[in-house]
Amino acid sequence: MKKTNCLIGQSGGPTAVINSSYKGIIDTVKEEDDIEKIYAMRFGLQGFLKGEVIDLTKKNKEELNLLRNTPSTIIGTCRYKIEDYNQNEEDYLKFFELVEKLNIGYVFYVGGNDSMDTVYKLDSYAREKGIGIKIIGVPKTIDNDMIVTDHCPGYGSAAKYIATSVMEIARDSRVYDVKNVHLIETMGRSTGWLAAASVLASNKKLKAPDFIYLPESKFSISNFVRDVENKMKEQKAINVVVSEGLKDKNGNYITASNSTAHDHFEHKRLGGVAETLVPFIRDNLCKRVKSIKFDVMQRAAAHCASGVDRNEAYLVGQKAVESVLAGESGLTMALDRVSNNPYQVEVIKVPAKKVANKVKLLPEKYINKEQNGVNKEFENYVLPLIQGEVEMPYIDFLPHFAKLETVE
Amino acid sequence: MKKTNCLIGQSGGPTAVINSSYKGIIDTVKEEDDIEKIYAMRFGLQGFLKGEVIDLTKKNKEELNLLRNTPSTIIGTCRYKIEDYNQNEEDYLKFFELVEKLNIGYVFYVGGNDSMDTVYKLDSYAREKGIGIKIIGVPKTIDNDMIVTDHCPGYGSAAKYIATSVMEIARDSRVYDVKNVHLIETMGRSTGWLAAASVLASNKKLKAPDFIYLPESKFSISNFVRDVENKMKEQKAINVVVSEGLKDKNGNYITASNSTAHDHFEHKRLGGVAETLVPFIRDNLCKRVKSIKFDVMQRAAAHCASGVDRNEAYLVGQKAVESVLAGESGLTMALDRVSNNPYQVEVIKVPAKKVANKVKLLPEKYINKEQNGVNKEFENYVLPLIQGEVEMPYIDFLPHFAKLETVE
Repeated sequence: MKKTNCLIGQSGGPTAVINSSYKGIIDTVKEEDDIEKIYAMRFGLQGFLKGEVIDLTKKNKEELNLLRNTPSTIIGTCRYKIEDYNQNEEDYLKFFELVEKLNIGYVFYVGGNDSMDTVYKLDSYAREKGIGIKIIGVPKTIDNDMIVTDHCPGYGSAAKYIATSVMEIARDSRVYDVKNVHLIETMGRSTGWLAAASVLASNKKLKAPDFIYLPESKFSISNFVRDVENKMKEQKAINVVVSEGLKDKNGNYITASNSTAHDHFEHKRLGGVAETLVPFIRDNLCKRVKSIKFDVMQRAAAHCASGVDRNEAYLVGQKAVESVLAGESGLTMALDRVSNNPYQVEVIKVPAKKVANKVKLLPEKYINKEQNGVNKEFENYVLPLIQGEVEMPYIDFLPHFAKLETVE
Repeated sequence: MKKTNCLIGQSGGPTAVINSSYKGIIDTVKEEDDIEKIYAMRFGLQGFLKGEVIDLTKKNKEELNLLRNTPSTIIGTCRYKIEDYNQNEEDYLKFFELVEKLNIGYVFYVGGNDSMDTVYKLDSYAREKGIGIKIIGVPKTIDNDMIVTDHCPGYGSAAKYIATSVMEIARDSRVYDVKNVHLIETMGRSTGWLAAASVLASNKKLKAPDFIYLPESKFSISNFVRDVENKMKEQKAINVVVSEGLKDKNGNYITASNSTAHDHFEHKRLGGVAETLVPFIRDNLCKRVKSIKFDVMQRAAAHCASGVDRNEAYLVGQKAVESVLAGESGLTMALDRVSNNPYQVEVIKVPAKKVANKVKLLPEKYINKEQNGVNKEFENYVLPLIQGEVEMPYIDFLPHFAKLETVE
């Protein structure tokens, strides 16, 4: 049998554990005699279509071992939506020309909802044209908003970083004997999964955050101010977690409808939602208000990654290889929680078409009546996902990360 | 001999390892038969003067063991400058009245430059009035701006968090094939020690940050834009670290002189310096500019603390007890680096008066010619301070912190 090569690509935002999925793919492919080279798209499909290809087969063992602990994505990514091939065949022709040239039999595309749309479309085209190639999706997103799967690799590590940092901020916010409010912003443009994870920061010794506001609920500034005001009757330091995508009752982002700030050049500034909410507290309740944004740290903090998350990221990569070798195509891996106590997951396979472009909101059953927090049921859902520590390889007690293939 | 009690207090901002200094004091005091109770000022001198006292002797062993890993300050702090007693004796009368009532023979005051002023003044008053009490300073500050001491407990952990996070952000910033600039802001209103520590994020695989701007150098926006512009000819992603206290050639804060932003209520917004610099890049060089602020995480991230820092914080607490027991008063502990290879420090003692209210700038010898970075000599200075990992006690893989004495 003639040996073929495989191709790994990614699209969408990075996570702390995407490289672990690559490692899962690479390790499993290497056990397979029929696959020779492991190519990667440099900067996702967009880079690949420009001919940007990396040969990961050459990467040495030490570097490969570092993948499990390296955040971001060493091969790069893109935000690129491939058109329907009935509308525009150009990308497809280019893609399969390159695939043929590189003798690629298997494609692994790591990503979220949009990436699964790409998997679906490329697979459909290949089937229609009778191109013998297997294309499989590998899930990742810190947003945790893919449907079908119980949760997404990348989410657990972001959740752990958020919970850990909120614990630390909550303690920091209580050192002075003054009323103060900390507004802490997480990512989550459409869904509240990340903000909700901050509930884990609460324990018997200190309940914090006091409130969590989610994009799934209509956000009312007056209710928010009232919540904080009431809580301030009981305690001096208030910690609030807000999801960046908070919307008002008309479905408008709070940032868009309430920011009139202008910068130096008279541009309208669209700050974060936490920053936007600062004056509503400062002018009504207390002068000491701070907005804190976790920014890209929440998706890049490999030093605070979840062991469970990292292992699952590896696992979905491994299973993706088994899937293509079994002749499957057009599917994506997903996680099924078969048991919560003890926590146990199985990798299942779902048609990429089914999850493509869909968004899984935080279900109502997890949100409290007052719409300013999440309940115990959600805690039970998220807690297993942040378990396990990871051994970080160090040089001088700073993380030893793998070299980025995107940097010359 | 009649048993006496001791009193611990703190003033100024918290760090990731202040509680470790308390543990050093507590452990050493407990070995001493002549000291009975360990009191703490709740919310520093300010709280104490209102009669707010905590009895740490009652704290159980498990809770005490958690101190080494708990950020913030479990007893609280204040920002309170005690007046000269020749001007106003009121605080002194109250302080020594409480001290007598609680039968306190030894006072440990943990803090930075301003706190050492308090140590000096209280000690001078006691000497003048013939009050037989020993008052000693224990150094802490993430800013690292105390004179005499080689470095300050608290700084190493903040430096480690900053270096680690910049490494992660640098990788995250290179995943898309687009020009982009990340402006990362550290604390440091008067000095650049914290910003400078980000130099450790650079290694052979990836040089980042590209530039570090310090309050010790006059900051020119046009030079900054030119630096970034030139670097952008070589690479797409630029990472810049700025100290919050950047000043222009006239000594004005960049934030004050360049922010014309107004918020919702038409208040002038004094944003961070990174945020203030965003439009200068966005309107001249590239649209994708992000400002990131490490905020209180840099002083609270116990999960990323330096082992060396934590041990030294403990050590200065321990030595402070030995000092008062030897009959000394009015001094502060300080660290002397007796060797850099292998790294070795000794605790020395300095009159609190000598360091009070002084500020140690980052020396010129560490700053590069272009005033946009620091040199190898500084790296050699800071690297030993971030060494060593700390065993974090976990509950469900989230930090198990000690209970705050400031929370009812």
